[in-house]
Amino acid sequence: MGEFELIRRFFASAACAAGGEGIALGIGDDCALLHLPAGEQLAVSTDTLVSGVHFPQDADPYRLGQRALAVSASDLAAMGATPLAFTLALTLPDARVDWLEEFALGLSSMARDCHLSLVGGDTTRGPLSLTLTVFGRVPAGRALTRAGARPGDLLCVGGSLGDGAGALPLVLGEREDSSPEAHYLLQRYWAPQPQLALGQALRGRATAALDISDGLLADCGHIAAASSVALWVEAARLPLSPALQQLFPRDFALNCALAGGDDYRLAFTLPANELPAVQAAWPDVRVVGRVEAGQGVHLLDAAGNESRPPALGYQHFGSQGD
Amino acid sequence: MGEFELIRRFFASAACAAGGEGIALGIGDDCALLHLPAGEQLAVSTDTLVSGVHFPQDADPYRLGQRALAVSASDLAAMGATPLAFTLALTLPDARVDWLEEFALGLSSMARDCHLSLVGGDTTRGPLSLTLTVFGRVPAGRALTRAGARPGDLLCVGGSLGDGAGALPLVLGEREDSSPEAHYLLQRYWAPQPQLALGQALRGRATAALDISDGLLADCGHIAAASSVALWVEAARLPLSPALQQLFPRDFALNCALAGGDDYRLAFTLPANELPAVQAAWPDVRVVGRVEAGQGVHLLDAAGNESRPPALGYQHFGSQGD
Repeated sequence: MGEFELIRRFFASAACAAGGEGIALGIGDDCALLHLPAGEQLAVSTDTLVSGVHFPQDADPYRLGQRALAVSASDLAAMGATPLAFTLALTLPDARVDWLEEFALGLSSMARDCHLSLVGGDTTRGPLSLTLTVFGRVPAGRALTRAGARPGDLLCVGGSLGDGAGALPLVLGEREDSSPEAHYLLQRYWAPQPQLALGQALRGRATAALDISDGLLADCGHIAAASSVALWVEAARLPLSPALQQLFPRDFALNCALAGGDDYRLAFTLPANELPAVQAAWPDVRVVGRVEAGQGVHLLDAAGNESRPPALGYQHFGSQGD
Repeated sequence: MGEFELIRRFFASAACAAGGEGIALGIGDDCALLHLPAGEQLAVSTDTLVSGVHFPQDADPYRLGQRALAVSASDLAAMGATPLAFTLALTLPDARVDWLEEFALGLSSMARDCHLSLVGGDTTRGPLSLTLTVFGRVPAGRALTRAGARPGDLLCVGGSLGDGAGALPLVLGEREDSSPEAHYLLQRYWAPQPQLALGQALRGRATAALDISDGLLADCGHIAAASSVALWVEAARLPLSPALQQLFPRDFALNCALAGGDDYRLAFTLPANELPAVQAAWPDVRVVGRVEAGQGVHLLDAAGNESRPPALGYQHFGSQGD
């Protein structure tokens, strides 16, 4: 038995521990088999993370396992889907047992948090990269898409923005900091919590939704285009975490929130009459703008004047790291 | 818009052309949405192909597109699943339009042949590799698995074996040959035809099945282990294509059939009373051995004596190229 066959068995035993409703057949045959309750659809999303492009080459394997699955699961949250299962295609230059054990622990930890079971995959030799495909289920016709925002809706986000971009100097080793605030930002970067419960709660309430991976303004552009509306973002209303505000000047923190990727918060449009119920259950939800007739994304500064969107001054790891 | 965003649009327009039953939402949102008829399960399989490991670095992109999808679709055939859709995660060192156009044409050609629609994926920068995830549907409880072979069953294959391994000297440029036989072998390697219709026809007839990717003997080992039986393979009964026999000495051709990978024929176990109906509809199906009580895979030579399984004398591209 080759070393890569051993890896397959390693993940297979990890998968058995997870179990899972909706899984008729897991790892070990030519295909996995999933079943859906009547009247439900399957939501599917695929993401690839490449070493040196989407994460540092010396990334801690436990954190990498956590983050890889969180990034993918966030797409299920964005559709309002209930998590079901995932496959992992792992390409590795060599089969180092200690690296794999740490990676599998991080992956399993996030899998438990997200209620996702590993049902299949492939392990190959080559430059380090990971492709995860996640599966969720959603009642037919009730998935949250990017189309559907209507003039008059509020533009909301699921919580503080900019932490992922704020963490990057720490992730890249450009800044050393052992403060609790730095630890908080690193945790937000390496173990973002996909807003799965919020996404499910927004079914039938939100008119459009997505998860913020490329930055609030860029991602709002997807809603604006798919819904044929204009989105107006009010800079003064953006929620910033205490840690981000503590570690950085306000202008930089604001730019992280507007243009930084890797937040994995939901952004969604909501009829105003739905807001009280949503905020009662999800107090971190904030209104950050509104939907109007027109097109594109527009930014209003604190004085209420339209201003030019900021650009972050450096290229970083993350979804923008094509 | 970055060059990789252009690639995404390029594949998105290719996907629209395909259309497809069972697809509620295709490319362009956070997830694709699939729906299944009542009483059916979803079959899922993921495969990665890495440049320089699973295919030559200078592989023709049209052929690579064809082969990548065929290899994955073959896993659906092995479960008896009806093809539905696939996702493509493509990692590329750069965005060369001519390469992408050829690759997309080859991929689309195989997608049409297999009735598979592209519903999503990811495009990232990095060392060339592809991860495809394929989706099929199968009536609940009727998928063909590797478990279920019973003593007394016949061991069958879906057609000639060894062509993939026989093509390798040509694929690797170790042998120059422009004969029709060489062309046939290259076609079998680069555009294997997943036996999707045969797989579906075997539902309710075959007791176990898989597709031959690692070589007949190695793959029979998976059936033997999952079914807790012994498989006896009779070398004299292996079907060899005229092209393979023309180009190579009989011993080498036979070794390709026994131990060579990349055939993507189905191997399955069948109660003897099912054979006439299967062969009437699928005349290329051949009995190559039988199932007995016991364990492991055993090889019988032409004289009926148990013989040692051969090993191919070189490492090659393909599923064995971990």
